[in-house]
Amino acid sequence: MIVDLRSDTVTQPTSEMLDAMLRAHVGDDVFGEDATVNLLETMAAELFGMEAALYCPTGTMSNQIAIKVHTQPGDEVICDQTAHVYQYEGGGMAFNSGVQSRLIPGNRGRITADQVAAAINPDDVHKAHTSLVCLENTSNRGGGSCYDLSDIQQIRTVCDNNNLSLHLDGARLFNAIVARNESPKQYGELFHSISVCLNKGLGCPIGSILIGSQAFIKKARRVRKVFGGGMRQAGYMAACGVYALKNNIIRLQQDHDNAKEIASNLIKTTFTAGLLPVETNIIIFEIQPPFQAAQIAAALKEKNILAIPISPTHIRMVLHLGITPAMVQYVIDTILSLNL
Amino acid sequence: MIVDLRSDTVTQPTSEMLDAMLRAHVGDDVFGEDATVNLLETMAAELFGMEAALYCPTGTMSNQIAIKVHTQPGDEVICDQTAHVYQYEGGGMAFNSGVQSRLIPGNRGRITADQVAAAINPDDVHKAHTSLVCLENTSNRGGGSCYDLSDIQQIRTVCDNNNLSLHLDGARLFNAIVARNESPKQYGELFHSISVCLNKGLGCPIGSILIGSQAFIKKARRVRKVFGGGMRQAGYMAACGVYALKNNIIRLQQDHDNAKEIASNLIKTTFTAGLLPVETNIIIFEIQPPFQAAQIAAALKEKNILAIPISPTHIRMVLHLGITPAMVQYVIDTILSLNL
Amino acid sequence: MIVDLRSDTVTQPTSEMLDAMLRAHVGDDVFGEDATVNLLETMAAELFGMEAALYCPTGTMSNQIAIKVHTQPGDEVICDQTAHVYQYEGGGMAFNSGVQSRLIPGNRGRITADQVAAAINPDDVHKAHTSLVCLENTSNRGGGSCYDLSDIQQIRTVCDNNNLSLHLDGARLFNAIVARNESPKQYGELFHSISVCLNKGLGCPIGSILIGSQAFIKKARRVRKVFGGGMRQAGYMAACGVYALKNNIIRLQQDHDNAKEIASNLIKTTFTAGLLPVETNIIIFEIQPPFQAAQIAAALKEKNILAIPISPTHIRMVLHLGITPAMVQYVIDTILSLNL
Amino acid sequence: MIVDLRSDTVTQPTSEMLDAMLRAHVGDDVFGEDATVNLLETMAAELFGMEAALYCPTGTMSNQIAIKVHTQPGDEVICDQTAHVYQYEGGGMAFNSGVQSRLIPGNRGRITADQVAAAINPDDVHKAHTSLVCLENTSNRGGGSCYDLSDIQQIRTVCDNNNLSLHLDGARLFNAIVARNESPKQYGELFHSISVCLNKGLGCPIGSILIGSQAFIKKARRVRKVFGGGMRQAGYMAACGVYALKNNIIRLQQDHDNAKEIASNLIKTTFTAGLLPVETNIIIFEIQPPFQAAQIAAALKEKNILAIPISPTHIRMVLHLGITPAMVQYVIDTILSLNL
Repeated sequence: MIVDLRSDTVTQPTSEMLDAMLRAHVGDDVFGEDATVNLLETMAAELFGMEAALYCPTGTMSNQIAIKVHTQPGDEVICDQTAHVYQYEGGGMAFNSGVQSRLIPGNRGRITADQVAAAINPDDVHKAHTSLVCLENTSNRGGGSCYDLSDIQQIRTVCDNNNLSLHLDGARLFNAIVARNESPKQYGELFHSISVCLNKGLGCPIGSILIGSQAFIKKARRVRKVFGGGMRQAGYMAACGVYALKNNIIRLQQDHDNAKEIASNLIKTTFTAGLLPVETNIIIFEIQPPFQAAQIAAALKEKNILAIPISPTHIRMVLHLGITPAMVQYVIDTILSLNL
Repeated sequence: MIVDLRSDTVTQPTSEMLDAMLRAHVGDDVFGEDATVNLLETMAAELFGMEAALYCPTGTMSNQIAIKVHTQPGDEVICDQTAHVYQYEGGGMAFNSGVQSRLIPGNRGRITADQVAAAINPDDVHKAHTSLVCLENTSNRGGGSCYDLSDIQQIRTVCDNNNLSLHLDGARLFNAIVARNESPKQYGELFHSISVCLNKGLGCPIGSILIGSQAFIKKARRVRKVFGGGMRQAGYMAACGVYALKNNIIRLQQDHDNAKEIASNLIKTTFTAGLLPVETNIIIFEIQPPFQAAQIAAALKEKNILAIPISPTHIRMVLHLGITPAMVQYVIDTILSLNL
Repeated sequence: MIVDLRSDTVTQPTSEMLDAMLRAHVGDDVFGEDATVNLLETMAAELFGMEAALYCPTGTMSNQIAIKVHTQPGDEVICDQTAHVYQYEGGGMAFNSGVQSRLIPGNRGRITADQVAAAINPDDVHKAHTSLVCLENTSNRGGGSCYDLSDIQQIRTVCDNNNLSLHLDGARLFNAIVARNESPKQYGELFHSISVCLNKGLGCPIGSILIGSQAFIKKARRVRKVFGGGMRQAGYMAACGVYALKNNIIRLQQDHDNAKEIASNLIKTTFTAGLLPVETNIIIFEIQPPFQAAQIAAALKEKNILAIPISPTHIRMVLHLGITPAMVQYVIDTILSLNL
Repeated sequence: MIVDLRSDTVTQPTSEMLDAMLRAHVGDDVFGEDATVNLLETMAAELFGMEAALYCPTGTMSNQIAIKVHTQPGDEVICDQTAHVYQYEGGGMAFNSGVQSRLIPGNRGRITADQVAAAINPDDVHKAHTSLVCLENTSNRGGGSCYDLSDIQQIRTVCDNNNLSLHLDGARLFNAIVARNESPKQYGELFHSISVCLNKGLGCPIGSILIGSQAFIKKARRVRKVFGGGMRQAGYMAACGVYALKNNIIRLQQDHDNAKEIASNLIKTTFTAGLLPVETNIIIFEIQPPFQAAQIAAALKEKNILAIPISPTHIRMVLHLGITPAMVQYVIDTILSLNL
């Protein structure tokens, strides 16, 4: 048995999801004829109370398309300094959209309306034109931290007053929604566009949904084609998404509970110096010197527990639907008895 | 019964292929851990006698990645004026790579070594730097026409003498290989990179393979990530590709035979003014005035036969594995008796 | 004495122009404080009856800025296949703006409204979005040919009906205006933006003016900054432009007369097979085999007459203010007596 | 009398420089025939002991060309968080080169070898490829601060070990060279490319020089053309550069002395809370609350002294050759007696 806590991207579909996949009605989505893709896009748009949606092969593509549609080359995008769109999308903002990032030192990945307001450039030819704010909820590098909706509302007000678009990288948005007992429609009201991963916590093999207005999605569809993301009989994969939206959201609470349980035991160990607050399915803990993150990760790996040292001093563990109660117990037993 | 001759992109997987899909061993391909993706990439590289391969969601992405890796912004790419990379990829060459096209008036989509040599720009700051030649085999807009390998060899020589890369858009390459009784390795020797669609004639729901040297594929993998094409458990789709490479190549001959049989009857009709030579699975026929392409397509559609009027005077029909012998006979019977 | 007919870009300022240059009132134009630049921009805008203008270091920059402001990456631009913006600006349309060219086979560089209408792409994600038409008047590669204003009016109507912008590369626009007895305001009414070279026929050392609406020029000023074209005390050079607009337009007629006189003699020689109609200050003549363009150019060079062989069979001569009546006579005498 | 301390970009040429301008031998630099441009480029290359140089209309263009030549789209560039290339070039790094910035919190604009080493991304498709380090000497936003050459040497070693290029934004490099008693050749040995402004302290109306290897400058010349920076008879402006390199370097010491003298009096005033160390010709001082920067700047303006409030709490003054000893005395008298 391998307990893979490296990421919730490693999930594999359940047999029920595979069954849904096999029975999918498909067609050529480039002709708009894939019934399952159409269904998924309609479901997602309705779930968030927005006009339209677009199925994409990855969350990176959803984000990159959104940034492209919201900006012009030479614009500036405001985001937290740890944002996935800046740190982990291969320099895509500059590559795909020709825009530069204005990085904010947020609180565990979350930035404030005041910070946004202060980061907007004046109308001066020397300065890039600020046109977009990107938030990430939950924040990956913030340890799965969640925004307060009221804070997002304030940021939206700043955006409205300054003619900025507001995009949500919602790779793990359903974790936030479940943890905070919110509804997707509350997000649909606050953002001009939202990307949601179907992979990760929702357990699909691949896929992401980009959601927005009709006009936005029409432009997004064009950009998806140019990136090479316009797939043909994508319905097999979309069927997993339909299944996930119906069945895999509420169960995220269990991942959160598992994360908290592991975290409450981690804190008892000699090798743990501290923990970021565990709000959802991510645990980021600091290693007590003289121990090192790589050393602890290696010791865990010997016990068949996989986790990523995200810095010389920190390790990340991510809970997901592939982690059973027995695995959680095994992780706890192992960390409490780890011989170093 | 609908006989869908609009494109070979409309094919749906057979039950055998679906079975292969369901039984796939998958993993997180971003970590390089999807066994089926790895298998498909290895198979494809070996088939063409090249070093490495990369699985992509679409043929457009394969082509766009190749163009990006082979060029710098401001370069010029030589291709036929009907080339898919210029005509049907949403302006992607300029959007993704910042390169401009030098369009050649080829013979049914095929250009010659002399044309390539004449199109290379001198070393002058006024002129874009020529760095890449893209061929398409078979040529879609050329009616499925095939290159002679000796002509490609001559183009390669021009490329070598002028320090140009040579890329093959092989969306329907296996149709050419089967029609001309060639081997993939003959292509692997002639090109610096090759993209092959697994969708289209090979019958997969989605997917394309980009093939080249180790160094090329390493760069391509980075560009795929930036475009948002780095999928996670892509093995379900890749499994269809593995199945197709094993089982669906030789049968393309039947599509070619079907195309020729339909064509030989089309030419007998009053509404057909002429036909491009039918070399593979594509039929492009000219409509005899006063009939019009849209009118004939509409008449066929009433009989449940779908075909695309690609201009006011021409209609395209594409054969594929979804077209049974009974359907072929039905098409022939219908066109011979069409009341106009 | 060297008679330099290679281009009208080789002109050097007259002493009167140099005097104007020396006496210029200058300031920091990035702060908007260069009085001479401001004057030149106001003069140019008023001359064409448009709202605003922008001084740029070169005509290439004026054109590239205009294309950038009028388009989005992934768009398509319609122009003649010999257009300077496609052929001689280093691939800049793709490099700077990420747009691809739809090339029209015009009549000596001039395209028609019907050709424009036929070249507009349908609203389809496969096709780049058509957003701009670029005309060139006079046409350099068309041998200094001029548009009829009524033909431009028809093109503008097509643009209006299809939501396209219309830009004029007017590098030699004043040659057309003088030759056709037109007024700049007639052009200001027909185009969304116009670039005019102050170099070339107008005799300034450097510089170009981009003219358009207030909103267009505001965006253009930003793009000029990003390209690095926002100069400081540019007034010395702008002063030459002010002088040229006042003094060097009407005299272009003399260059046209000179061109016609040389051409009428060229046609008598044994080495001339034919001539493009001479409408302005450019002569393009075809060489009679077995003579070759390079050979004739070399023979002329031995007699201190410089002209560019623009192809193996054609030579271009360009008249300008540096060519005196005595030089014209010398050229005529020389070509009529050339020993080959 | 206006004492303009807003920037050293406001300088106007002396009569000696204007005389040099008027007597320039010029030609068409696009044909490589402008003798004065050629002379300036040769002088600059020799001064820095490098192979070649390129005359550009602005320092922004020099920097943007260098970044373009050293990088590929999707790369990452390391620079100080206040760097001109990031803050004041209109988002050009992303717009022109498609690269993203990795911003370092330096010490008054100066970063260290350790910071550079820590900022280099691992070879991972998620991360942009680090390829270039840009330094700025003197640092504008650092208040004219200068690097120690030994610190630059250490950064160069990190670059060599990691296959990074090293570019110097030397807009005010001669200020550093004079202040530190260094030689240009010491910089030529440490950097792969250097841009130097001829405007600013050297007093030319426009212009900048980019210096590097033959191969680098050949590529740079192509990029300059694409940006629209390839001017024709640029020799008039280049003549000012030749004059400045011969006559205006040593005198920068006087600007530094003037800056120190003003600063030593500023610190005595009630409205000054503190000063950045004055190393060259820039003074950045902090305003003592309840006074505000805008208020003090307005009060100075009433006395005909212009200075820019660069933040709500800081004012910048820049000394240059347009500031006479009498003006310095007037500034001192004024600030010491300012009624607030």
